[in-house]
Amino acid sequence: MFDPIEKLKEYVRQASVSADPKFKDGMVGAQNFLTSLFKDLGFKVDVVPTALHPVIVARRVGNKAWPHVIIYGHYDVQPPDPLNQWNTAPFEPTIKGERIYGRGTADNKGPLLVHVTAVGQLLEKNPDVPLNITFMVEGEEEIGSKNFKSFLKANRHLLDGDFIYMSDNGILSPDQMIVTVGLRGMVALEIELTGPKSDLHSGMHGGVLMNPLQALAELCASLHTPDGRVNIPGFYKKVVEPEPWERAQLKKAGLKKADYQKFLGISKFHTPPGYNPFEAIRFLPTLEFNGFTGGYQGEGTKTVIPSKASAKITCRLVPNQTPENVRECIIKAITQRCPKGVTLKITEQHKATPYVVIPPDRSNTPKNQSPALANCFRALEKAGTEVWGKPPIYLREGGSVGLLADLKEVLGLDAVMMGLFLPEDNLHAPNESFHLGVMKKGIETSRRVLENLAKAGKA
Amino acid sequence: MFDPIEKLKEYVRQASVSADPKFKDGMVGAQNFLTSLFKDLGFKVDVVPTALHPVIVARRVGNKAWPHVIIYGHYDVQPPDPLNQWNTAPFEPTIKGERIYGRGTADNKGPLLVHVTAVGQLLEKNPDVPLNITFMVEGEEEIGSKNFKSFLKANRHLLDGDFIYMSDNGILSPDQMIVTVGLRGMVALEIELTGPKSDLHSGMHGGVLMNPLQALAELCASLHTPDGRVNIPGFYKKVVEPEPWERAQLKKAGLKKADYQKFLGISKFHTPPGYNPFEAIRFLPTLEFNGFTGGYQGEGTKTVIPSKASAKITCRLVPNQTPENVRECIIKAITQRCPKGVTLKITEQHKATPYVVIPPDRSNTPKNQSPALANCFRALEKAGTEVWGKPPIYLREGGSVGLLADLKEVLGLDAVMMGLFLPEDNLHAPNESFHLGVMKKGIETSRRVLENLAKAGKA
Repeated sequence: MFDPIEKLKEYVRQASVSADPKFKDGMVGAQNFLTSLFKDLGFKVDVVPTALHPVIVARRVGNKAWPHVIIYGHYDVQPPDPLNQWNTAPFEPTIKGERIYGRGTADNKGPLLVHVTAVGQLLEKNPDVPLNITFMVEGEEEIGSKNFKSFLKANRHLLDGDFIYMSDNGILSPDQMIVTVGLRGMVALEIELTGPKSDLHSGMHGGVLMNPLQALAELCASLHTPDGRVNIPGFYKKVVEPEPWERAQLKKAGLKKADYQKFLGISKFHTPPGYNPFEAIRFLPTLEFNGFTGGYQGEGTKTVIPSKASAKITCRLVPNQTPENVRECIIKAITQRCPKGVTLKITEQHKATPYVVIPPDRSNTPKNQSPALANCFRALEKAGTEVWGKPPIYLREGGSVGLLADLKEVLGLDAVMMGLFLPEDNLHAPNESFHLGVMKKGIETSRRVLENLAKAGKA
Repeated sequence: MFDPIEKLKEYVRQASVSADPKFKDGMVGAQNFLTSLFKDLGFKVDVVPTALHPVIVARRVGNKAWPHVIIYGHYDVQPPDPLNQWNTAPFEPTIKGERIYGRGTADNKGPLLVHVTAVGQLLEKNPDVPLNITFMVEGEEEIGSKNFKSFLKANRHLLDGDFIYMSDNGILSPDQMIVTVGLRGMVALEIELTGPKSDLHSGMHGGVLMNPLQALAELCASLHTPDGRVNIPGFYKKVVEPEPWERAQLKKAGLKKADYQKFLGISKFHTPPGYNPFEAIRFLPTLEFNGFTGGYQGEGTKTVIPSKASAKITCRLVPNQTPENVRECIIKAITQRCPKGVTLKITEQHKATPYVVIPPDRSNTPKNQSPALANCFRALEKAGTEVWGKPPIYLREGGSVGLLADLKEVLGLDAVMMGLFLPEDNLHAPNESFHLGVMKKGIETSRRVLENLAKAGKA
């Protein structure tokens, strides 16, 4: 059996930045690394082309009567910039203390290797283990999984699994296992207001027309109520209140408001009534401004009334909102409220459907939940409790992972998400690292999960 | 006598851009050009150094009992950028039709040469004309006349004139003389709001804190009422309503709302109640946003909650507002209204006191108005009526020229401003030009003004 840390080093050395064509060698390097790795385990490997970066599909195909787990991961990483803030070379993995540093160590090369190692150990111990296993490792996660849905549609025949099993999500401390059971959706759009046909001198023309910046301020200020809610008719209409068990799980995580406030560096929280900050992130939708642009952006003063002003907006969505419905509500409100004297242009940008998966035996578990999915949750609960010393906590998260809705829509499969990275792992930032203790526990947990699944048999 | 058009060509060839040290040769060239020009007229010339660009002071000193006119101008010009939008080389003056093209032709080299030529013609006709004349030509007007006030303070002994006479202001058509009798003042400031101590991911943290962009929108949206007035207590307290004669003069100018609306390219005007657009520009103060900055400014989407957001604000002021008082009102309102959860930083930027000068024999002419100033207005009215075929119109303008308040404060002198450039002269823009017909009428008018002043004698 290979040494997972040595393998991770080799994997991280492949500078697989999907966003930048300069890193093509790294992308190919990562594809070749995975191909060898999976072949060494006896898997059948397909490098499935897409419009940009291929997906690696590695399959252990046994008896149809065995359970079939599909393990998702991605081999692409974020760009390493800004390089001067790294303490070690981003693509030269370096161990310091209980961490391994390097771009992609935590997102998502380390976590994928946790599962590959678990599979390797399992097969070494029991080469005939009754389990069909498919690894599906994409190369465009960091650039929005643009071609992943097409890949899924075109390759359904390779992906007739029972559920998705994956670790591209986080935990809060190395001592507590977290299972992610939901992610918020998203709607992104940009509004642009145009006033005069060209920039004007604020002395010669100031005071006679609606300044697009003023219109932008008035329009954007109308989108929230003073108590912190989104002020758009219909916005909350389909929002489902969290179940008591969800609030209870969150409470178990023991998050402290004072710590969080200090981390953010803010003087006070601003959450809608009835929700503490940790609940608001997970259970409520948002409308956030991500950028305002208009007029003079340099040092000092320029007495200009700009022709145009614009705002970038993203909303995070929760079940059962849909991006389409929320977008319609926003566009309607913005169109109605746009101040007179400027013209409004709305550009629709990307969207993601919110995702939630309910573990078995909860107040809101769907009656028709797949028994295979329930088996996987139970396998994970058992293994996690044994290895981590206490049961996992089931939490929704505030971010968005659009591919989960795609997996559900195209393959009809839900995902069981075992968290493996920590807040201090610096994902997407300089000095990304992965905690070796978590890696070790993760391998042990994942091996037991797979054993438990095999033992349970086809659901 | 020199040919004024040939002299203007020579003057424009000196690329005297004050903002950019690369144009040092042009600045020195313009200084040398003026020194020779004034010496050729028999004037005593001082090149008075300042902290940056010197002021050219040229004096014809005769009998103390003669009237003393100080003619203001500036030899610096705006940068020529963007160069690719010029149809002719900016510093190679070119005549096409009834216009001469080149940077500085209208602002302010042509208008200054109008007065220099008028003086030259006057002295040629009557070398002993009983008039003290001082030209004061600065080199920093386009960068805010930063050192001009210090220059005035240090050189009062050279500047014991009766009034200022100048042409750095506009007319509306080549057929109607305009005398500018007021300019708005200014207060500039920047507000910066800081929320979290660093940029945050809008998925991981969205919905729990006041987004600085949202706070900026809410704060800025609070600064106007729906009817277009500035919504700041005390802002209008000292504003003086225009006199009926001022509205009547403006009416005489025959400006058309439809033409102006078409020029601006807006669907409707937005002026406070009781004022048409032409009145609002001249008689009302404003609060305009000149720039919003915050968050992601590039293409597409970035799911960031920025740490900071900022707005640049300038107010135009009218008599009897003061920059200090208005700034205090704004800072108080902004400080009180700043949303909770963000911290506010206000940076005070430049300011200019509003300026107004009332011609003689009006309802609001000061009782203690200087008779010399009244003489100059009368000399201008007479000359203007003779040359242009109808009396001048007296108008305030919307822009700000801070040096007028400096002249008033330091020298105790008011300014008589004969407009010479047209809206289509493209000041500060590519293809700046000066109308040769206006130039000719300007020279004739100015010579007659000076003759009338000499005839009137010391007031």
